[in-house]
This record gives sequence, C-alpha cells and structure tokens, in this order.
Amino acid sequence: MDLLRNPFKGVVADVKGRASWYKDDWVAGLRAGFRILAPTMYIFFASALPVIAFGEQLSRETNGMLSTVETLASTAICGVIHSILGGQPLLIVGVAEPTIIMYTYLYNFAKEEAGLGEQLYLAWAGWVCIWTAIMLFFLAMFNASNVISRFTRVAGELFGMLITVLFLQQAIKGIVSEFSLPKAAEIVDRSSLIYDFQWIYVNGLLGVIFSIGLLYTALKSRRARSWLYGIGCLRSFIADYGVPLMVIVWTALSYTLPSKVPSGVPRRLFSPLPWESSSLGHWTVAKDLFSVPPAFIFAAIVPALMVAGLYFFDHSVASQLAQQKEFNLKKPSAYHYDILVLGFMVLLCGLIGIPPSNGVLPQSPMHTRSLAVLKGQLMRNKMLQTAKEGMTNRASSLEIYGKMQEVFIQMDREKNTDSVDKELKSLKDAVLREGDEEGKLAGEFDPRKHIEAHLPVRVNEQRLSNLLQSLLVGGCVGAMPVIKMIPTSVLWGYFAYMAIDSLPGNQFWERIKLLFIGSTRRYKVLEGPHASFVESVPSKTISVFTIFQLVYLLICFGTTWIPIAGILFPVPFFLMILIRQHLLPKFFDPNHLRELDAAEYEELEGVQNEHTLEEDGSISGSCDSRNDAEILDELTTNRGELKHRSVSHREERHLQVHSNAVQPSV
Amino acid sequence: MDLLRNPFKGVVADVKGRASWYKDDWVAGLRAGFRILAPTMYIFFASALPVIAFGEQLSRETNGMLSTVETLASTAICGVIHSILGGQPLLIVGVAEPTIIMYTYLYNFAKEEAGLGEQLYLAWAGWVCIWTAIMLFFLAMFNASNVISRFTRVAGELFGMLITVLFLQQAIKGIVSEFSLPKAAEIVDRSSLIYDFQWIYVNGLLGVIFSIGLLYTALKSRRARSWLYGIGCLRSFIADYGVPLMVIVWTALSYTLPSKVPSGVPRRLFSPLPWESSSLGHWTVAKDLFSVPPAFIFAAIVPALMVAGLYFFDHSVASQLAQQKEFNLKKPSAYHYDILVLGFMVLLCGLIGIPPSNGVLPQSPMHTRSLAVLKGQLMRNKMLQTAKEGMTNRASSLEIYGKMQEVFIQMDREKNTDSVDKELKSLKDAVLREGDEEGKLAGEFDPRKHIEAHLPVRVNEQRLSNLLQSLLVGGCVGAMPVIKMIPTSVLWGYFAYMAIDSLPGNQFWERIKLLFIGSTRRYKVLEGPHASFVESVPSKTISVFTIFQLVYLLICFGTTWIPIAGILFPVPFFLMILIRQHLLPKFFDPNHLRELDAAEYEELEGVQNEHTLEEDGSISGSCDSRNDAEILDELTTNRGELKHRSVSHREERHLQVHSNAVQPSV
Repeated sequence: MDLLRNPFKGVVADVKGRASWYKDDWVAGLRAGFRILAPTMYIFFASALPVIAFGEQLSRETNGMLSTVETLASTAICGVIHSILGGQPLLIVGVAEPTIIMYTYLYNFAKEEAGLGEQLYLAWAGWVCIWTAIMLFFLAMFNASNVISRFTRVAGELFGMLITVLFLQQAIKGIVSEFSLPKAAEIVDRSSLIYDFQWIYVNGLLGVIFSIGLLYTALKSRRARSWLYGIGCLRSFIADYGVPLMVIVWTALSYTLPSKVPSGVPRRLFSPLPWESSSLGHWTVAKDLFSVPPAFIFAAIVPALMVAGLYFFDHSVASQLAQQKEFNLKKPSAYHYDILVLGFMVLLCGLIGIPPSNGVLPQSPMHTRSLAVLKGQLMRNKMLQTAKEGMTNRASSLEIYGKMQEVFIQMDREKNTDSVDKELKSLKDAVLREGDEEGKLAGEFDPRKHIEAHLPVRVNEQRLSNLLQSLLVGGCVGAMPVIKMIPTSVLWGYFAYMAIDSLPGNQFWERIKLLFIGSTRRYKVLEGPHASFVESVPSKTISVFTIFQLVYLLICFGTTWIPIAGILFPVPFFLMILIRQHLLPKFFDPNHLRELDAAEYEELEGVQNEHTLEEDGSISGSCDSRNDAEILDELTTNRGELKHRSVSHREERHLQVHSNAVQPSV
Repeated sequence: MDLLRNPFKGVVADVKGRASWYKDDWVAGLRAGFRILAPTMYIFFASALPVIAFGEQLSRETNGMLSTVETLASTAICGVIHSILGGQPLLIVGVAEPTIIMYTYLYNFAKEEAGLGEQLYLAWAGWVCIWTAIMLFFLAMFNASNVISRFTRVAGELFGMLITVLFLQQAIKGIVSEFSLPKAAEIVDRSSLIYDFQWIYVNGLLGVIFSIGLLYTALKSRRARSWLYGIGCLRSFIADYGVPLMVIVWTALSYTLPSKVPSGVPRRLFSPLPWESSSLGHWTVAKDLFSVPPAFIFAAIVPALMVAGLYFFDHSVASQLAQQKEFNLKKPSAYHYDILVLGFMVLLCGLIGIPPSNGVLPQSPMHTRSLAVLKGQLMRNKMLQTAKEGMTNRASSLEIYGKMQEVFIQMDREKNTDSVDKELKSLKDAVLREGDEEGKLAGEFDPRKHIEAHLPVRVNEQRLSNLLQSLLVGGCVGAMPVIKMIPTSVLWGYFAYMAIDSLPGNQFWERIKLLFIGSTRRYKVLEGPHASFVESVPSKTISVFTIFQLVYLLICFGTTWIPIAGILFPVPFFLMILIRQHLLPKFFDPNHLRELDAAEYEELEGVQNEHTLEEDGSISGSCDSRNDAEILDELTTNRGELKHRSVSHREERHLQVHSNAVQPSV
C-alpha cells in the first residue's frame, strides 16, 4: 500500500501544520481573558463527573485496586500532556467506559492466574499498555488515520448503543448492589449496625430514591434552555451546569436524613485518599514490570490489540467530531500526530499503574461548541439584525447579502482573508439561492431559518481552556475528601442519565423506536421533524436493517458476558466495519444503505407536513433576544455534533405543488 | 321577586319534561346492549377511586369513625337513587372533597364539646344534613337554579384551585405521616416490631417511592392515547383505565417486598370491614338524633348553610357541564328537580350516619363524553370520508354538503326529524361559510379541522350506565377486604395525581404560569395554541387580575386553617360571586373581564403564528384511522368539558394579510 511506503508522512505533515499555529494557540487563549473561564468550567464539569463515576465502577470491579483517584489522575495528567503537546487542542481526553471494561477483564484474568494474582495485576496491565503504545506508534507511523473515513455512522452508532446498554447495566447493577452487603473490601467494621437487614434495606430504598431523583432532575435540567419559564440567564446556567448541580443537590439532600439513621447509610463513594498508602503504591508499578512471567508478557499482546483498536477508533472519531466542517475551523487537523501522542500517554499511564485516557465523546465536540459560543454571539446577532432590516425594507437578496458582507468583514478581526472570502461565498450562495429562485415566494426567505444554517461559526481555537480544565480535574484528586461525600446511588443515577442522554440523535435508536409505531400512525412521524430516510427508504427495508442491527447489538452485548474471552468484545465491532463495506451492499440497495448510513450532519431533512409560510414580523422580531446558546442547542445534537441539514430536493417539489395550489384562487 | 311568586314552577316543569322521556331513558340503555358496559366501567373506575381515597382521608381525620366503607356506601346508595329517581341521568353523584372537609370540621367541633363528644358526632352531623335538606328543598321550591348562570368561570376556577391545593396538602400530609407513628386508633399491637424507628423509616421511604411512582405512571398513562408507540386499542385502554391499573400495579408491587420486611410495612388502608360491629353501628344513628342537646340542634344551622350553598353550587355546575350545548343533548334538563332529589338524598344519608353525596366533577362531563363516543364513532368516520372524497373531486361546497346530508340521514335512525333538521342546518352553515366566502382559498377548507368542530355529537342519554356503575360502587363495599390491600401511600400519590390532573384547562392556572414567562419569551406562547385573551387583554391587566385571584385564593386557603371558624371556608368563595358581579367591573375594563371570565368553550382561539396552509393529501388521508376517542380528547379538556372554540375575528384578518403577501409574487 501507498501508505506503508511513506512512513511518518502524516505525522510530519501534522507537526508542520500545527507548529506554525502553536504560538497563536496560546495567544488566542490568553487574549480571550476571563471569558475563557466559561467554556473551561463547562468542560471541566462535563469531563470530571463521568471520570468520578467510572472510578467508582472500576473500584467495585477491581476490589478497590483502582478507584476514582486513579481515573482522575490519568485524566488530569493526560489532559495536561495533550493540551501542551497534542496536535488538536480542541480534543478532550479522559478515562472512558471501554478502558474501564478492559481493565475489569484484565483484573478478572490476572487474579485467577497463579503467575500473576492481584499483586502483579497492575504490572501486567502495564505490559498491555506498553504493547498498545507500540501498536499505536505503528498506526501513526504508517498513516493509518487515513482510513478513518471508513468508520461510518453504522459502526459508530453500534458502539454508542453498546456503551449505552453497558451504562444501563451498570446503573441497574449499582442499584441492586445497594440492597445487599457491600464487597468485603469496603466493610470496615463487620459488627456495625449498618450491616443489619433493616439498614441495608433502608440503604437500598434511599438508593432508589437518590438515583431516580438524580436521573429525573438531570434530564429535566438538561433541557432548561428551552423552558418557557424563568429568567434567561438562570435557564442557561441550569442547562450548562444542571447535571453537576443536581449531583450536589442530591448529595446535600443525603445529609438531611434524620439523625437516627446511622452514618454509613446511604453508602458513599469508596476510595482511598490519594495520600494514603494504598494509593501511593501504584506509582512504583514500573519496578514490578519484569516480575511478570514472560508468557504473560506476550499474552498481553491480545488485550493490547483490542485496546489499540478501540483507542485508535475512539480517539479519531472524537477528534473528527470536534472538527466538523461546519465549525469552520481555521487551524489544521493532526490525526496522525495525535495517535502518536496517544501512544506516549498510554505508555506513561501503564508505567505509573493508572488506566490510560483517550479522546472522549461527547466532551470533545461539546468543547468546540462552547468555544464557538464565545465568539459567535455578537456576530450572529448583528448579521441577523441586518438581514431582517433588509427583509422589512423589501430589499433584494443581493442588497441583503451586501449589507451582511459589510457587517461580517467589519466584525471579523482575523487576518485570514482567504477563509473570510470562502465563508462569504457559501453565505452568498445561500442568500441568493434561497431568495431569488424563480417560482419561490418572497415570503419564503425567513432570515432566522435560512441564514442561520449557513452562518459561519467562529471557534476560538486555543490550548488554554483544555489545559485549565485538565488542571481542575487534577485539583479534584486533592478534593477527594469532598468527592467521597457523593452517595454511590447518585452515581448509579448518573450512569442511567448518561445512557438516556446519549440516545436522541442516534439514528439507530430513532429507528428502533420506529419499529414500535403502528403503520396507521406513521404520518405523525412525517408531521414532525424527521430525517429524509423515513421518506426515501421503504419502511420494510428500514425495519429489516434495524432488526439486523439490533441482533448484532445483542451479539456484541452477549460477548461482554463471556467470562475470559469477553475481552474480545471489540472484535464483532471491528467486524462491523468490514461487514458494512463488503457484505451489507449485497443485501441492501446501496442508495438505501447510503441514506441509512449518512452522517447526521449530512442527513437530508425530510419535508414536514406543516409548512410555515411567513411569520408575523412583530413576533419574530422578539426572537432576536433568544439566547445564542439556545440557537446552538437547536443546531447541535445532544452529543454536541452540529447537524447541518441541507434542504431536501423534495422540499422544492413541495413548494412547487403548493404555489400551484395557491395561484388559481388569486 | 318573580321566582318567589311561582313556587315549584321549575320543579314541575322539570318533572313534566323528564317524565315523557322516562321510559325511553331505560329503553335506550337496554338497546345499547353490551356496548353500555364500556362507559359503565369507565365511569365506575373514575368514580370509585376518589371515593376510596376520600374515605381514607376521612378515616384519618375522624379517628376512624367514618371511613371508606361509608363513603362508598353513600356514593352507591345516592347513585342508585339518582339514576332511578333523578332528573338528569347523565349527572354522576358521589362523596366529594368539600363533604370530607365539612365532616372533618364537624368532627373536630363535636369531639371538643361536652354536650356532643365522639358518640353524638354522627347524630349531630345528621342534624346538619336535616337542615341542609330543608334549605335545598326551599332552593328547589323557589326556583333558585335560575341563577346558576351567575356562577361564572372566575368563581368555578377559584373553587377548583382551592380543591387542588387541598389535594396537594393532603398528599404531602399523607406522605409525611408515613414517616411517623400511625394514629392511636390504628395501632393494633404496640409492641410490634413495625413501630421501631427503622421500620417506620422504611415505611416512609416506601411511601415516597409508591406515591411518586403512582403519580408519575398515572400522569403518563393518562396521555397514552397520543403516544406515538404501541397498538391503538392498547393505548386507548391505558388512557381510559391507566389510573386504576396503576393503583393495581403499585399495590401488587407492594407485595413483592423481601420476606424479611415485617407485614404492616408498608401501611395499607385502614378501615373496619362493613360487617364488623364498628361499621354496623352507624345505621342506627337516627335513634340518637334527639339525644343531641337542643342548642346544638340549632347550631347545626350554621354548617348546614355552608353545606347547602356548596352542594347547590357543585351539583348545578356538575350538571351544567354534563349538558353543554355542544353535546347536542335531546332530552330536557332538570336543575330544579335535581336539587329537590339532592335534598332527599342528603336527608337519607344524615339519618343513616353516612356522609352525603352530590354531583361530582369531572366525572359528570366524563360520563356524557363516554356515551358520545358510543354513537358518534361510525357516523363521524363516514361523514369525514364523504367530505374528503368531495374535496379530492374538487366538488363545490354545496355538493359536499349534499352528500354529507345523505350520509347523515341514512345513519341517523332516530325519529326526531326536527332535531336532525336543526343539526343539518348548523352543519350546512358551517360547510358553506367555510368554503364559499370570497377571498378565501379553496385549499383552506380542511375537512378534518372545519367539519369536526360542527359535527353533531350524539349522546346516548339513558339511565342504565349510571345505575350499573352505582351498583358496582356498591359492590366495592363487599370488596373491602381487597380494597384494604392498597397501600395508603398509593392513595397519597393519587391525591397528588388528582391535583395535577385538574390543572390543564384551568385558565387561572394558565395565567399563573404566564406570570413566570419573561416578556422576551411571550412570543412562544403566541406560537402555540392559546386563548384569545393573551392577545386581546394587555399583559399588565392579565398580571394584576391573576395576582388578585392568587391573593384571594390564599385567603380562601388560609380560612380552612382557622380551627373552628374554618367551617365558614365557603364564605369567601360565595363572596367571590358577588365581587365578580359588582366590584370587579369597577376596577377592570368590562371587555377584558369578559375575556378573562369566558367559559372555556366560549373562549376564542387566538391566532397561532404558524399557519397551516394545506396538507399533503396522501398523508392526511391516513388520519382517517385516528382513534375517535383521540379526536374527542382534543376537543375536550382534562375535566371532560368540550372546548368549542370559535375562530377568532383576528384569524380572518390574518388570512387577509397572508393572501396579500402571497399575491405579488405570483
């Protein structure tokens, strides 16, 4: 292959590309001043909470050998490294669910093997990291990132659904565990009152209340921005920080129980403090590396293959989604180089006995989005205003475009005129196409709807917010005594929240729901916003494809349950990429397949049966004051991805039909 | 007054009017055959559940002297009497919240008085009933029902909100009580394990889970008909019977607790069985009547005044809402005569020592609605089909009307040609007006939207369903051993459900919510369906009026907290009717007042900012199979009232504007 003949070609190109921007990466961050703190805090909370939850999960699975201290430390260390040395500073790294699952398998395997046992578990995991690092190194060297375009939606969503199912499984396992005795390692004083049945039962009931309470309030507060009631800035605050806020609220509530309830009910996070001896032991794992029997050193290649595959996929996809075309990023990508840096980070984590971090979803695109808000706000309002003024003065589209161009150039302080020109061109196309086509109604040109989609988003691409949030995560290690106050049941609720929150926008999930809609009610789907595949692909094909995916998902999930071979759980998932490429086109019409596998932001928007003709000027005028973040919320999925839906060709046909229907009566 | 000069004029007219239909009332019921069972079961569950909950509330307040057995018995006895002897058989009677509150005050007063005490409580309450019956007799005699048109929305909604607040208070009081020792009367064995702190605490936590669980699932299942998923008939079943179903589900769940939880946790309904001596004692209350000291006999006039006023109001309003004009009832009303029958029922209940029943909301309009479904289904589908066929063939409105007339006459097997003619005329007016007016677009005539509103609803007016559901309620008395299995916490959840379910459609509530919408987001209200007052009344006036109502509500609620004088709690409410008539017009523009006080079904519908032009034929075609009950759900409020909104004059203006906007571009 051509790729193999040019080792380091990609890495070198990436380094060159990013090096020229390196100074600007820091200057741009510093220039933002205090405003950089808003996205920093936003991403910090989005990043730290899952890491805390995963730490507790890992602690249960490894009998306390690894816990929240280690997951936080890894996220902080890797975050600092990546923000300083990494290629794409918009990418957020952290310990993710696949890592936890792999480390669980490694633990279960190690503790049963006479040659390893619990005491050599971390050293052996270190070997897995070493092999993984080597593989990632080769992947970077031979420009493997060129293939990431083959990671289509079908594979990504299958993996996403698997993680969702695993989150739900963890939530349920967690709540059930609240009704039974804690694991031996967590019992301090066996004679304590709290191990009597009635107090365990009270603990379980409180667990149900806290976890469901957190789940419900977190889901509600997530949607605060579109609430009808309350003040705008309060709603924004709740939408951005509602979930950590609810963790704090429910933790506080857990301290309001009557004094007759013994302490220890409800159970709280179990983790040694970072400065206690059981935590300090990890840092010297490297000296045990050669105590691992050689057979196991080589056996570590098998899990390393899995980890390397997973990390390569996850890291690339997270980076890709943080750099969607519609974000209009100006600085180059660095996929190849970032895999190299990832390999280095995995190696480091392995040597100091902590689980490694990789690029995470949905935090990475969330990061880009939060930086886009920072700069886009003023510009968008100004341009919308100009467009609207043009509209009310019945100006022609060309005039409107001219005025908007002025505003844009005036507002844009960047020197890169090339990019400004390109952006203006796409905007110009949009304004002129939307407004001037024959047979279209003048009333059709709704500035909010039509320009919004083409408005150039500006992202403050810098390294400061990533560095600061990593340092804050590092600070959490010191704040462990506070973090340990969180009841475990609140974390189980948080797992359920993560599972449910990841579903909207997942086409696979939307199609699963479609299976349960009776054919007589299909029209309801067409009445609401819907993707074009609902119209263009026969519903029988949709059903068959979805059922195939469901069965495949069950196979993937089933694999995770196999005692030791479960470590191969990523295999069916890697297979899926091949199946999609070579097998599926034989069973499905390639056009249908393309529709069902279209990236969300490429997905065509279907024709809604309700067609908005024109809005009352006085009322759409008040939309100006709509919070910018709310507009972005509508433009992005829950996972933070932009959904840039082109207008489907059917809409034009529909307009034609409709203007015919109007004409005769005039 | 003229009314006073013609005693019994109303009653005599009512009796004459209903007597001629009396035979038909039974024949029509029997002719429906088994189909009568659907509305019977529907109303039975809607009727029995609150009565069971009120019984438990009464049992707590009267230290077990009256309980669910008595409330069920009263509802059954009065139901049978009313369905056989009453005037308007669509009216459903039952023990309602105001009765429970009055009986609580009577109990609290009686137990403190040396001359009465607990043993003469029921005898004294009997005297209150006797005086109430006399007052109701006089109200019927002097044709008082002629004034019920003065009971405007403001008064009705104030009362509704007061009941809502009292329901919520009961739900909270109930849940809190689960965390403390039960009342002395309910403790069987003081040494039992379940009175230890930890088990009381478990009971409380289970109470929270069961009550919130019932509340959430009941609210969700209530909306099942509009769910996107699942089979139509299953959705209908859940929507109609979801609430009793959820009571059964949560009761069943309460039996799945681990066996180590002692029986008695969670607490269940406390009521003596009807055949136990403590229940049997009531039936001989009449012989104690003259043991009540004469002073107390006359003091009973004060509470009797309150009860008579409340019953007169409640009974009339419930009857009114069961006979809304839009239901197209054919048989005459009997307001005066029904008050007389009510007086008789109150007397009987007083003499046998049970709390009396009166006409209840929302069950009465729900009853009418459920009978309308029975007959309207076929006819509506057939006529809509005909209209749509006409539309697609581009037939003129006159032709469409002609075809619909054929179907209507063919479908209508009733002999009353007079009424058919009248209904056809109003339909004719509608079809012709909508379709043929100049300047309107042909595409505007959407059969679903425009004909639906004018479609004659047919109600099977008969006595059988009312009699049968009363007998079923009576059967519940025998089923007390089963009913006693319901955990009390499920009932507290049911109180919260009743409170929340009564809010939508209450304009007062909608306006309270409006207070919390920032001025910049008002446009969102105008974009959705909204009543015309939002547009026609200045928002400052709306706010002032709403705050006045809120303060008044607080006064009413505060009154209920006054220890003994609280019995006068209906007084501020009676005052409200006078304030509305004489005082409010001095402070508010009468036009605004009329808008804010318009009955819901008279309320004009405001112009929505989204205007549907035309729907794709192929898709609206599939709407045919929409469940009939769902259409009715949309046409009626949660309380079962029909909302027949006329098209506001603004809509015509809007259409004009809009067609102007379209013309230039063609």
